[in-house]
Amino acid sequence: MLIVMRQDATREQVDAVIHAIEERGCTARPIPGGERISIGVLYNVGPIDPATFQGMPGVKEAIPVTRPYKLVSREIHPHDSVINVGEVSVGGDNFVIIAGPCAVESESQVMSTAEHVKRVGADIFRGGAFKPRTSPYAFQGLGEEGLRILARVRENYGLPVVTEVLDMEHFDMVEKYVDIVQIGTRNMQNFSLLRRAGEAGKPILLKRGMSATVDEWLMAAEYIISEGNPQIILCERGLRTFVRHSRNTLDFSAVPVVRRESHLPVIVDPSHAAGLRDQVLPLSRAGAAVGAHGLMVEVHCMPDSALCDGGQSLYPEQFEVLCRQARAIRDIAIQNH
Amino acid sequence: MLIVMRQDATREQVDAVIHAIEERGCTARPIPGGERISIGVLYNVGPIDPATFQGMPGVKEAIPVTRPYKLVSREIHPHDSVINVGEVSVGGDNFVIIAGPCAVESESQVMSTAEHVKRVGADIFRGGAFKPRTSPYAFQGLGEEGLRILARVRENYGLPVVTEVLDMEHFDMVEKYVDIVQIGTRNMQNFSLLRRAGEAGKPILLKRGMSATVDEWLMAAEYIISEGNPQIILCERGLRTFVRHSRNTLDFSAVPVVRRESHLPVIVDPSHAAGLRDQVLPLSRAGAAVGAHGLMVEVHCMPDSALCDGGQSLYPEQFEVLCRQARAIRDIAIQNH
Amino acid sequence: MLIVMRQDATREQVDAVIHAIEERGCTARPIPGGERISIGVLYNVGPIDPATFQGMPGVKEAIPVTRPYKLVSREIHPHDSVINVGEVSVGGDNFVIIAGPCAVESESQVMSTAEHVKRVGADIFRGGAFKPRTSPYAFQGLGEEGLRILARVRENYGLPVVTEVLDMEHFDMVEKYVDIVQIGTRNMQNFSLLRRAGEAGKPILLKRGMSATVDEWLMAAEYIISEGNPQIILCERGLRTFVRHSRNTLDFSAVPVVRRESHLPVIVDPSHAAGLRDQVLPLSRAGAAVGAHGLMVEVHCMPDSALCDGGQSLYPEQFEVLCRQARAIRDIAIQNH
Amino acid sequence: MLIVMRQDATREQVDAVIHAIEERGCTARPIPGGERISIGVLYNVGPIDPATFQGMPGVKEAIPVTRPYKLVSREIHPHDSVINVGEVSVGGDNFVIIAGPCAVESESQVMSTAEHVKRVGADIFRGGAFKPRTSPYAFQGLGEEGLRILARVRENYGLPVVTEVLDMEHFDMVEKYVDIVQIGTRNMQNFSLLRRAGEAGKPILLKRGMSATVDEWLMAAEYIISEGNPQIILCERGLRTFVRHSRNTLDFSAVPVVRRESHLPVIVDPSHAAGLRDQVLPLSRAGAAVGAHGLMVEVHCMPDSALCDGGQSLYPEQFEVLCRQARAIRDIAIQNH
Repeated sequence: MLIVMRQDATREQVDAVIHAIEERGCTARPIPGGERISIGVLYNVGPIDPATFQGMPGVKEAIPVTRPYKLVSREIHPHDSVINVGEVSVGGDNFVIIAGPCAVESESQVMSTAEHVKRVGADIFRGGAFKPRTSPYAFQGLGEEGLRILARVRENYGLPVVTEVLDMEHFDMVEKYVDIVQIGTRNMQNFSLLRRAGEAGKPILLKRGMSATVDEWLMAAEYIISEGNPQIILCERGLRTFVRHSRNTLDFSAVPVVRRESHLPVIVDPSHAAGLRDQVLPLSRAGAAVGAHGLMVEVHCMPDSALCDGGQSLYPEQFEVLCRQARAIRDIAIQNH
Repeated sequence: MLIVMRQDATREQVDAVIHAIEERGCTARPIPGGERISIGVLYNVGPIDPATFQGMPGVKEAIPVTRPYKLVSREIHPHDSVINVGEVSVGGDNFVIIAGPCAVESESQVMSTAEHVKRVGADIFRGGAFKPRTSPYAFQGLGEEGLRILARVRENYGLPVVTEVLDMEHFDMVEKYVDIVQIGTRNMQNFSLLRRAGEAGKPILLKRGMSATVDEWLMAAEYIISEGNPQIILCERGLRTFVRHSRNTLDFSAVPVVRRESHLPVIVDPSHAAGLRDQVLPLSRAGAAVGAHGLMVEVHCMPDSALCDGGQSLYPEQFEVLCRQARAIRDIAIQNH
Repeated sequence: MLIVMRQDATREQVDAVIHAIEERGCTARPIPGGERISIGVLYNVGPIDPATFQGMPGVKEAIPVTRPYKLVSREIHPHDSVINVGEVSVGGDNFVIIAGPCAVESESQVMSTAEHVKRVGADIFRGGAFKPRTSPYAFQGLGEEGLRILARVRENYGLPVVTEVLDMEHFDMVEKYVDIVQIGTRNMQNFSLLRRAGEAGKPILLKRGMSATVDEWLMAAEYIISEGNPQIILCERGLRTFVRHSRNTLDFSAVPVVRRESHLPVIVDPSHAAGLRDQVLPLSRAGAAVGAHGLMVEVHCMPDSALCDGGQSLYPEQFEVLCRQARAIRDIAIQNH
Repeated sequence: MLIVMRQDATREQVDAVIHAIEERGCTARPIPGGERISIGVLYNVGPIDPATFQGMPGVKEAIPVTRPYKLVSREIHPHDSVINVGEVSVGGDNFVIIAGPCAVESESQVMSTAEHVKRVGADIFRGGAFKPRTSPYAFQGLGEEGLRILARVRENYGLPVVTEVLDMEHFDMVEKYVDIVQIGTRNMQNFSLLRRAGEAGKPILLKRGMSATVDEWLMAAEYIISEGNPQIILCERGLRTFVRHSRNTLDFSAVPVVRRESHLPVIVDPSHAAGLRDQVLPLSRAGAAVGAHGLMVEVHCMPDSALCDGGQSLYPEQFEVLCRQARAIRDIAIQNH
């Protein structure tokens, strides 16, 4: 942290800040400048709230410097983490495509979609058994019956499966049936759930909160890893902005930033960000091009009659184009990466 | 919902949309216009996702019309709800001030703060026993020991107390000790927690998510009320924006909007929004002026040594000015309201 | 500026940064820390772009420290500036209310509105002669004929008048007719216009851009003041956010921040921010409460037939309530300020 | 426009709305629904402000339906526009790369950069002669001397050149020297400048405002085209969001949306959006992948000593990789488009 004093700060005010720094077990290093004095805060053991100093007399600004995450940081762990999910590897130079319907609605719907996406080139199957819904009156998912259907997808088609868990109550159940446990955008800072994920034996797919900074996202991953589970796949899914032509705005620059700051793999979900089918293919190509380790997209064998988010689900034939284009683009993107 | 067709939409495309509407049990009402046809969707029983139609051929746009909430709506329940908390009434023409430290740190800190805020004019005491922290390495609260201290505040000073609950595991425990259970901004769409709150016998203070629309916020309240608990106090606490001179940007226009749309009381929390002590007093006055039913502010008897968010906590003497100014302004604001 | 090096930065990389700093005529001051080295940049004469250093090998981050504005800063000019407009004083402990229609539509409309707002308590009259319109097909204002009507308002009612100028072509003409020249939100970074305003002999009302930071806003004022015109009134008019229940979101915390950073007066425009009449009165009260030096609101004698933004214009009787409440609240707000 | 009445709206309130619609020369079409009545507004000749109706008694909401733009719309002009710039074609299936330094600093700097980008594969050269700068104390560009240098680039290397114009005063001068006149993000709603651009004989590169919706951007283009100049190239350059790891957030979904709504070509500028060199290559690939008609990037032969935005300028060897990857990705992206 760097504390910038006002031009008219008195000697007493500077001393009070130095005293407050040292009281917290840190070292204060005054840096005299042309117009004002600044004070560096060194050797802090945990995060210090800038507001603590910002409120003190004579202080103009307190600026955090060191990033607060540790175990997820590439500075600690320089090489790419690769997460193994059955026979699929996520991270490094691998590129995975996760596909399936928004919600598990019935065995026949799921199986016909799984058959298709497997044939065309998906690596992992997705489908929601517990759905986070803005309205209490909307379809909430099939629950454990949905999980059983997902487990049969794995048996029948050899595809690992991923589904979202909404709360700690159902974590054991979800973990039992699936290969990757997803924590959704609304739960990115559900700290109890993150801690529980840290005790899981399965990989966690951690979506970015729709208004979270990359630092907050990596700190959420730090919650999981600090409890003992290093198998984390990050997923960028779009920010809430003033834009109205799409549901959210994908933050593509987060991908190179995460890759530089952290060793964890990061994928892109264009379906929820777009909210509209027409944008999913172009945004998927962009996700492959920007250097993501994979994509997660919604595909539905009959999207026009889907119970949930049908309008953003790809038709099967569109998904085929997506797989072909995304993989070809990825090959180009990593040539000189 | 209103579905706007493209100018070049064919008769078949229009028919397909009408068919899709009727398949969902709704009534389709075509509205021919000068340049294009639109189709009204009537009598829908639950929420319909606009994306369902937006993805269909020939459709230009699908625009939701009816608000999705019911029980929280003023159209259903025209008069202001008043929530009783001990002898304090929240809502209607009452104006409540909730005050206390960010976190419960020790019995002496809490008691001296409580003594002060009670004397100066607080109606309800606040203090965090379980703290949501971005970093797993930051102080996480005293837990049940903190709850016991809060209960002693009620005994000693006759102040009802409010504290945040982070997860379902601790809901029973929190509900046992306090008078109002707070659901924080990060949990506004933690649907399991909302449902549990709906079964509680205590009032719920529901903070707005930092990137939630007012509709989503009211739908979160609808989760609680639809489970049987109508005792809800809404709390505006600021939005995440590009602004850097405050932690968040308070959305003051949400107050008149919520008051028009819903019968529930709505208060303002300037401390977390500002993140800086200097802004808390002016923003508190603005909250009283805009018509909120109350304020929730952080006060600390020794903010410079606080373990959590000390920089945004008021000094005791500032809180005294706040109470006097806010109540006087509120009296003016409701004169012709 | 503070430059934070990566943990693994080499001695050569640190030296290259120091060299680059000194090449720009500044002083480099290395600050060794626990885990990494940081380098302070001192005595810089003009603004330095952080990106210059951020792109260099071994650099983790470059953080600007000193604020870039000078003449608008309270550090240079500690006392409140008071701008004199005819017999009206803007700034300090004065509170001004500027009112009038969005657009000047006809002499009779303007005169009847002026008569009303003058009688009820407005200090300054507003009205648009040149209108910035999103659509080229919308009403663009009466131009010079509108300016003449405004001049007659001053003659008839003794109210100083303010109107917006859209471009340099019309600056001379606007300056000739009115008492305050307004630069609108879309022109906040129209640097040629700002320079021209700096040569004007009339006060400038400078609206904040709808996505401008306070720093950028103050830098826009710095353009004006550095050309020689220190008569600037700042006007907060709302930010573009994801919110849909109002046109923009007023950033009330900008008011205390501007008052702390700058000596210039700052007022609030709730009409354009809200976009809806119902929010204007509560937001006006909030503006008075937060400590603004005044308000600018739209009033129309017949808002339902206005050619422009009628839906946000107050009815005359609402404006009367506004004046009474806002002035009473302001009196309370400054008692202990 | 669709006007939704409140459930408790009276017959008189409905009639007043119908009357207000008809007074504006439009047709009112009431649509009775299950719970409330809505009223369609048909045959409106120009844009109508929703706020006009939203403020009327009994009205719950007024929702705009028809898009306000006409001449830029693909509904009017179904085929892609192709803009010819010398021998370069922008639009349709062509993919253009525009490259050069942020600012023209000296003849030698420009010529060595031009030589390089021409050889590696740029189609058009860019460079700023007039720079929009947040600070009045920052380098403002070489002015006409810069324009002369750009003209010599065209002579020496056969590259068409593009530069930004900041105001009407310099439009004639800029138009005389360059092949494409750029209107920057801060001037997207400088309506006088847009009208002047509409009278120009040269193509206009119109950057999106950093907080503009796609509708507003297309309306800005409508200003130009309605004055007679249909040669417009749109340029997405990033939105202002809460994100701090990049200067702005590129809105990639705007590209397919603009391509669907309009016949005009649209390119992407990753350099200004990123603000950091490391992100430019991945974002350029994403721009090619998402279906943009081209890219505009900053390249500097010696970025570490650039006077302006050096930190976001590519090194020459990075630009070479960019050209190769972007063109290869574009080929894949349009295969099934």
